[in-house]
Amino acid sequence: MADGADQASAADIAARVEAFIRDVVVSFEHDSRWGSHGPSGELVRELRTRAAAAGVLTPHVRPDGSHLDHRSTALVLRAAGLSPLGPTAVNVGAPDEGNMYLLGKIGTPSQKEKFLAPLLSGQARSAFLMTEPAADGGAGSDPAMLQTTARPEGSDWRITGRKAFVTGAQGASFGIVMAKTEAAATMFLVDFAQPSVVVERVLDTIDSSMPGGHGMVALNDVRVAGDCVLGEAGAGFSYAQVRLAPARLTHCARWLGASLRAQEIATEYAVRRQAFGRTLIDHEGVGFMLADNLIELKQAELMIDWCAGVLDAGAAGGSESAMTKVAVSEALYRIADRCVQVMGGTGVTQDTVVEQVFREMRAFRIYDGPTEVHKWSIAKHIKRNELKRCLA
Amino acid sequence: MADGADQASAADIAARVEAFIRDVVVSFEHDSRWGSHGPSGELVRELRTRAAAAGVLTPHVRPDGSHLDHRSTALVLRAAGLSPLGPTAVNVGAPDEGNMYLLGKIGTPSQKEKFLAPLLSGQARSAFLMTEPAADGGAGSDPAMLQTTARPEGSDWRITGRKAFVTGAQGASFGIVMAKTEAAATMFLVDFAQPSVVVERVLDTIDSSMPGGHGMVALNDVRVAGDCVLGEAGAGFSYAQVRLAPARLTHCARWLGASLRAQEIATEYAVRRQAFGRTLIDHEGVGFMLADNLIELKQAELMIDWCAGVLDAGAAGGSESAMTKVAVSEALYRIADRCVQVMGGTGVTQDTVVEQVFREMRAFRIYDGPTEVHKWSIAKHIKRNELKRCLA
Amino acid sequence: MADGADQASAADIAARVEAFIRDVVVSFEHDSRWGSHGPSGELVRELRTRAAAAGVLTPHVRPDGSHLDHRSTALVLRAAGLSPLGPTAVNVGAPDEGNMYLLGKIGTPSQKEKFLAPLLSGQARSAFLMTEPAADGGAGSDPAMLQTTARPEGSDWRITGRKAFVTGAQGASFGIVMAKTEAAATMFLVDFAQPSVVVERVLDTIDSSMPGGHGMVALNDVRVAGDCVLGEAGAGFSYAQVRLAPARLTHCARWLGASLRAQEIATEYAVRRQAFGRTLIDHEGVGFMLADNLIELKQAELMIDWCAGVLDAGAAGGSESAMTKVAVSEALYRIADRCVQVMGGTGVTQDTVVEQVFREMRAFRIYDGPTEVHKWSIAKHIKRNELKRCLA
Amino acid sequence: MADGADQASAADIAARVEAFIRDVVVSFEHDSRWGSHGPSGELVRELRTRAAAAGVLTPHVRPDGSHLDHRSTALVLRAAGLSPLGPTAVNVGAPDEGNMYLLGKIGTPSQKEKFLAPLLSGQARSAFLMTEPAADGGAGSDPAMLQTTARPEGSDWRITGRKAFVTGAQGASFGIVMAKTEAAATMFLVDFAQPSVVVERVLDTIDSSMPGGHGMVALNDVRVAGDCVLGEAGAGFSYAQVRLAPARLTHCARWLGASLRAQEIATEYAVRRQAFGRTLIDHEGVGFMLADNLIELKQAELMIDWCAGVLDAGAAGGSESAMTKVAVSEALYRIADRCVQVMGGTGVTQDTVVEQVFREMRAFRIYDGPTEVHKWSIAKHIKRNELKRCLA
Repeated sequence: MADGADQASAADIAARVEAFIRDVVVSFEHDSRWGSHGPSGELVRELRTRAAAAGVLTPHVRPDGSHLDHRSTALVLRAAGLSPLGPTAVNVGAPDEGNMYLLGKIGTPSQKEKFLAPLLSGQARSAFLMTEPAADGGAGSDPAMLQTTARPEGSDWRITGRKAFVTGAQGASFGIVMAKTEAAATMFLVDFAQPSVVVERVLDTIDSSMPGGHGMVALNDVRVAGDCVLGEAGAGFSYAQVRLAPARLTHCARWLGASLRAQEIATEYAVRRQAFGRTLIDHEGVGFMLADNLIELKQAELMIDWCAGVLDAGAAGGSESAMTKVAVSEALYRIADRCVQVMGGTGVTQDTVVEQVFREMRAFRIYDGPTEVHKWSIAKHIKRNELKRCLA
Repeated sequence: MADGADQASAADIAARVEAFIRDVVVSFEHDSRWGSHGPSGELVRELRTRAAAAGVLTPHVRPDGSHLDHRSTALVLRAAGLSPLGPTAVNVGAPDEGNMYLLGKIGTPSQKEKFLAPLLSGQARSAFLMTEPAADGGAGSDPAMLQTTARPEGSDWRITGRKAFVTGAQGASFGIVMAKTEAAATMFLVDFAQPSVVVERVLDTIDSSMPGGHGMVALNDVRVAGDCVLGEAGAGFSYAQVRLAPARLTHCARWLGASLRAQEIATEYAVRRQAFGRTLIDHEGVGFMLADNLIELKQAELMIDWCAGVLDAGAAGGSESAMTKVAVSEALYRIADRCVQVMGGTGVTQDTVVEQVFREMRAFRIYDGPTEVHKWSIAKHIKRNELKRCLA
Repeated sequence: MADGADQASAADIAARVEAFIRDVVVSFEHDSRWGSHGPSGELVRELRTRAAAAGVLTPHVRPDGSHLDHRSTALVLRAAGLSPLGPTAVNVGAPDEGNMYLLGKIGTPSQKEKFLAPLLSGQARSAFLMTEPAADGGAGSDPAMLQTTARPEGSDWRITGRKAFVTGAQGASFGIVMAKTEAAATMFLVDFAQPSVVVERVLDTIDSSMPGGHGMVALNDVRVAGDCVLGEAGAGFSYAQVRLAPARLTHCARWLGASLRAQEIATEYAVRRQAFGRTLIDHEGVGFMLADNLIELKQAELMIDWCAGVLDAGAAGGSESAMTKVAVSEALYRIADRCVQVMGGTGVTQDTVVEQVFREMRAFRIYDGPTEVHKWSIAKHIKRNELKRCLA
Repeated sequence: MADGADQASAADIAARVEAFIRDVVVSFEHDSRWGSHGPSGELVRELRTRAAAAGVLTPHVRPDGSHLDHRSTALVLRAAGLSPLGPTAVNVGAPDEGNMYLLGKIGTPSQKEKFLAPLLSGQARSAFLMTEPAADGGAGSDPAMLQTTARPEGSDWRITGRKAFVTGAQGASFGIVMAKTEAAATMFLVDFAQPSVVVERVLDTIDSSMPGGHGMVALNDVRVAGDCVLGEAGAGFSYAQVRLAPARLTHCARWLGASLRAQEIATEYAVRRQAFGRTLIDHEGVGFMLADNLIELKQAELMIDWCAGVLDAGAAGGSESAMTKVAVSEALYRIADRCVQVMGGTGVTQDTVVEQVFREMRAFRIYDGPTEVHKWSIAKHIKRNELKRCLA
């Protein structure tokens, strides 16, 4: 059965990725080239060279360019996430992974050649420019407030606006830019190697795993050729939906991996140390926290698998991915928090990766839509479907 | 595929059970024969007569006496649980359902004829006597403290002790009694129609769905014939394990159904009523609660399905069912609590079944092992398996 | 210093009340005359006769009719609350206590003689009719939706409407009714001994401490004499404010007493019982719950004392009492819940008063304004005061 | 009345400190000399020079060397805490403030001249060396596991051991060292300007407000003169108690200030920004978070004031300060977390100080004893006092 085969092979790929993360990537976690704005370009290149050698670079995309199904992708990305450096190392990180997905779905052959190929090979990085600065009265989490505009100029377009929280902007080769056009909104592929694209600053954020950090980007009357419209003009919001649910899900899968790692570290700590006359884990105050973690890790895994199955069955998965994003991000945050607490003073130091996982999880509750925005949309969904019986 | 067929048929059975609950059982929810110690014997008989007529009595056991697999059983029991009266009505309630399961597994043909057959037909009720009064220094949740003893007397046995929280004791035909014997502990099938078995009192508890309530039972030198040993003498604890995980799981499935119903009622309320200038559900304070519920109901469903799959694959499932019981009981409690809160004053009245579901969920966090006891055992499991990688 | 003297004397009164509750009232907690709609009239009379004999009847009102200040009242009511029967026994229960307060503030001499005197002596009970049935599109928690009307007829008034959740309606001599009049809203003193005042039904609610329970009351064109307007016509909402904050606070104080009692019972249980090889309280899973309770009980006490001080200083205390009501009701609920959990199976039985305290606290999160309504008003307060520095 | 006068004067001092923090210190919050290991020595000197000029340096100690009482100190330190840089700027930060207190209580005149005077003038910093590395099997949070030893050598002592989480070690002039001696444990004043005292490394921790960060310190057979014993030899543990409760409380007070500031920033954000058609604070999802914060800030203030009152009345306050530390640290953490969440993407950036306050609060739940250790001691206290009635 096709699906069964795919799962089996996904398990193999995931196992190889896991081995690579544990055997190779983990040893780079204290590398000095990894700073508060993520790993440097040099470190990324070194890790990817090793990943390629180990046969685990861009492991979720088959040689023919097709992607593993969503359930399989989740398994592979979870393995990659076992180190916060892992997704970058094997080239399944955000926003590149979502951009690969979208380009694979709706890019033209020449767009694929120019923009997708260097992503797949791990030689380029990209950005996704949607969120706008709240301070400008811009979109924030609310797409209806989009202020960046693109106006046609002959066969070209001119894009003007400012984008915020552009992950990986610093060092990206290109970005997918959402802009208002006469008809609704349109997506553009924008080469970053032009002076009208300015990374104004890289934000100092609580998280530090993404190469290039999160930048503020000014688009100063950027000229874009007509063949750089991604998909149909005016269909930007529907493409955003195409990318949305899968991208949410891959975030969840990667961070599940990181949280499993944190749990391993905290468990090992609790099993080795003594305090107040007992092994740490034998204190119920500690053991219960690890038990709660085990339960919530399982629930996160099940939610991700469920949502992936919904997407694999062809649904858009807006509600399901919102439910999954809320449940998983909030759970992984609690898990990381408990791991920190179990480890006491050591937990708040960078001596282990637990401290970083905690910081990443804090940001994850906001990135890709704050919990509250998702609950708001889920409540609207409940209102619409109120008459449907729960078991129907 | 056998498994696929079973699932399909389970969906059919579940659909019929759901229709029966919604069309028939719900209308009995304000029947005056349902009191604080559960529905009366007369009400139970009336409901079961109707269930039999609708072809949904004891729906999880096939005509040949075999049980649906655990995943299928969970689907059917969830449907039955849509009313707190439902499981009793269709004869899938505790403790009978677990007793059917255990008797089916290890009863002798003559034990099955005498004890199991009247259970399956819905004509008798039974009890399970394990927990002992904490006040006597007895077992409570701790099986190592078992104080009830059985001593051989010729080919018979004499059982002496007191058992607490014996669900359904009042009105049961027989009980399965755990007692200390020379070799560890042994299970006995004890006919309740003898004066040495005394239901001392029925406790006034916060829950009220179980027929017969929860009783304190004295076993005053009860004589039991040798062929009433259930399974092997001395193997009581291992049989307790056989019954344990499935019984935990069916509790979860039934109460999931009740919680889904509470969510339906609360949602309908929130969609219909206005307050402070807006439909109730459009207040984020309300909508977010219903969104949290939707997420946690899905998680409960997934945990139950996962654990059932583990049992169907042949594992004992001790840890998995402990994890599931903790996760599901605590989640369903939060869900019921939010439903009450969404409905304001109406939520704390018996005008809807939500108030009862809340009370039942409060008890469920303690019945079948308090959350803390399960977390303690999960922590021990984590300690033992500490070196196993989470993704292995 | 006057204030100091008052406090000292309050401590004396509170000590006498406490002794009466512990020595006398507690022994009535399993009296069969106490049912799901509260203690019967006969039981109330017996308790009050004893309270009068012990010199603790209506202990918060001085012989001259003046009330203790709010901080002192809180101390006395906390002591009364040590039993759920206590406030009724010593005549400091809702809604009488709040009605005494309001009548004392704004009643005319003849109103005081007719309505207040029998309340103070404990011979009559009263009701407060503000909330309306949500099902009628009525007020619920939203006073702006008031639908009960009073229209002048000569020097009299005619009142028509339905009121919901009227605590103590069954058996009350009179009620204070809020009704819409030409000018805003007006409060009326309505004698219940007339056929046009109909207690349609007493709700079956999760709580059971209030004599008379909570009723639905129809006011069928009730004629009220002109001298039964309480205070000024049209000033109903401002009088509601006068009663509001103090009444909220006395709820908090009484239930704090009940929660302290629950903590005593749970602590004694945890110190006496053994499980899994250790005294219950020496399990961190249990000890931490009791520690959390101790902290939250202290916080509840401090919040009540703070809010009472604000009222004693002459402020209206709308925000402060909303903050206190939210904080205290939610905390006491968690406390009661933990007490239940600490006691395991015993916790969900009526063998101790803990089970009832838990049910009362569940209702308290909704009665007197659900938590969410108070948070909504606090948020508005924050918005208005945003520019004020927190430490100003 | 002396106490009243003291409070009044404390309010004046607090007001001056608050003005200094808001007018001066806040403008240094983005100073590049403030790094992940706290503000540099140069920045500290500059801030203190300004504080001295403003008359707010070491404001909690009177010219005669006496300290404000605990309630007054709490007011002053809360004001200082309005910026994470504030306590250092006005010289009321940890561990110096606690060391000043202890030296003031038990130092000899010559110890005060040599060690205390430079602290009071803000020219020196100090350390407190108690915690030991868990990895060495050392004390962690458990004082019974103390491994550092001091042995007499003539009139001198030789101290050997390793200390962990030594706040401010880097750059401190001296430290108070707890070491095992023949009789129990003894405190020593150890000059850091000697090669046998080695700051092995400064930990990279999630917090970043303390000058000198948190270091690992090796004491390599350090020679200490006999007059550097602080107080009586063998009385180390009882002096630790003297310092303990007040030091816990001042932590709470300082961080309360920081949390109030975070609330101000988040409130201003929520009142200015629009999203989804409404001002942010008018979304209940946001407004309720700010309301919860307002409540918990008040509770933190009340707990601190209560505990300070207990200390001012002369009690040791072990339990009270443990209760306060748990309640306040956990509450301030939730508050900071909600402030982050209210501000969305901006909340996780260092554009405002909210992000840092969140990180500091995460560490505060562990520093000065993890929450779980305090709950454990509170549970022991409950067990001992079980028979005492709650209202006695």
